[in-house]
Amino acid sequence: MEMIDRKGGSALWRQIGEILAADIAAGTFAPGERLPTEPELMQRFGVSRFTVRQALGHLEQRGLVRAEQGRGTFVHRGVLDYTLSKRTRFHKNLIEQGFEPGGELLVHEIVPATERVAAQLKIASGAPVIHRRGVMTADGVPVELGDTYYPSERFPDFDKARLLYPTITAALASYGVTDYERLSTEIEARMPSAEEARLLRQPKSVPLLITRKVDVDAGGIPIAFAESMWSADRVIFNAELR
Amino acid sequence: MEMIDRKGGSALWRQIGEILAADIAAGTFAPGERLPTEPELMQRFGVSRFTVRQALGHLEQRGLVRAEQGRGTFVHRGVLDYTLSKRTRFHKNLIEQGFEPGGELLVHEIVPATERVAAQLKIASGAPVIHRRGVMTADGVPVELGDTYYPSERFPDFDKARLLYPTITAALASYGVTDYERLSTEIEARMPSAEEARLLRQPKSVPLLITRKVDVDAGGIPIAFAESMWSADRVIFNAELR
Repeated sequence: MEMIDRKGGSALWRQIGEILAADIAAGTFAPGERLPTEPELMQRFGVSRFTVRQALGHLEQRGLVRAEQGRGTFVHRGVLDYTLSKRTRFHKNLIEQGFEPGGELLVHEIVPATERVAAQLKIASGAPVIHRRGVMTADGVPVELGDTYYPSERFPDFDKARLLYPTITAALASYGVTDYERLSTEIEARMPSAEEARLLRQPKSVPLLITRKVDVDAGGIPIAFAESMWSADRVIFNAELR
Repeated sequence: MEMIDRKGGSALWRQIGEILAADIAAGTFAPGERLPTEPELMQRFGVSRFTVRQALGHLEQRGLVRAEQGRGTFVHRGVLDYTLSKRTRFHKNLIEQGFEPGGELLVHEIVPATERVAAQLKIASGAPVIHRRGVMTADGVPVELGDTYYPSERFPDFDKARLLYPTITAALASYGVTDYERLSTEIEARMPSAEEARLLRQPKSVPLLITRKVDVDAGGIPIAFAESMWSADRVIFNAELR
């Protein structure tokens, strides 16, 4: 059992937090690595689960670790330096930075276009659009929660096509969209809703970066409108401006 | 005194909030206009100052008004749609959108370059840099709190030059920098410090958009490094990507 000062000065959880922070700084626990479990830490320091949780909470607030429900507590992997350009591709961007891209589809539905979506896609309000909501991950950590809208008439059976190809880019190519680029990108920031924080597995106290973009094909026709919510403590945008 | 329902259903402050929200929507109170004072609203609705404040707080949370300490409560002027391009100029950007640009210089000092600043400006660490901290305003409302660093050797007596010209662009031109553009732009979001919230006259609960940029002259030599904190409920970036 490790020596900690039970009498004076600093609270137990704070002392334990400092010891673990020093371990992380020294590389004893490497970026992306899982910390010892709560029972292991209780034994190592001879303290209650409550104290261990306080210590881990302190590390999380400092951005040194992140807790993943049911999986444990991981040393923070660092932020994603995400290039924003006309030709940004999520998959390629992550792989170039040594992150493993991943994702989970939460919603696939065909709905009538709202006025906002129709205006961006330059289609009639109420025309059918494919709405896909998904969470994109870097090394298994959610970084982006996105709602994307495609004109349904142009991409029939898109859900089936998407399953056949590894990336959106490849799926679009199967419809003859061999190239596309961004027409416009809006960026703002706001606090997350409870639902957004839950889906991004982040605290509600961490803001979101919001991007809204329209992708157009080689002929300038809009093929997708996407609104994405990015966990602000996991990404820095690097905007390649013209 | 206006009729409000003191018995049933909705709380008084909520009813008053809805009446004022309807007035704003109808244009009775125009964007940028000051709402009636608290005593005036107390009289109009026959309620306590506490109830009036709850109603105004409700409107502020909904983003319909903003309270400015010592000045009153103003109808929200709308967000600034701020173009980010290689050739972005604050003054020009605001004027094109019908906002009156303004600003206040908070700090002007010559300090040794930190490693971070030196690396961005491509000068020796510790070399003298001009540090200017200022708040930029749109129609008198703070939108940006910025720290800008210039290599001191290239711009001697910059404080005096700046006073002689209406914009930074014009002051730089007096040193022969007739043109400059952005080399790089990073964008992130985080919560404000108490100091940042105070200087931007915004709640601590509203996140900041952060931009970091390096400006270079026509020969590609860095002339300025700036880190700016933008009040996220007052600006949307429109990134012109290449």
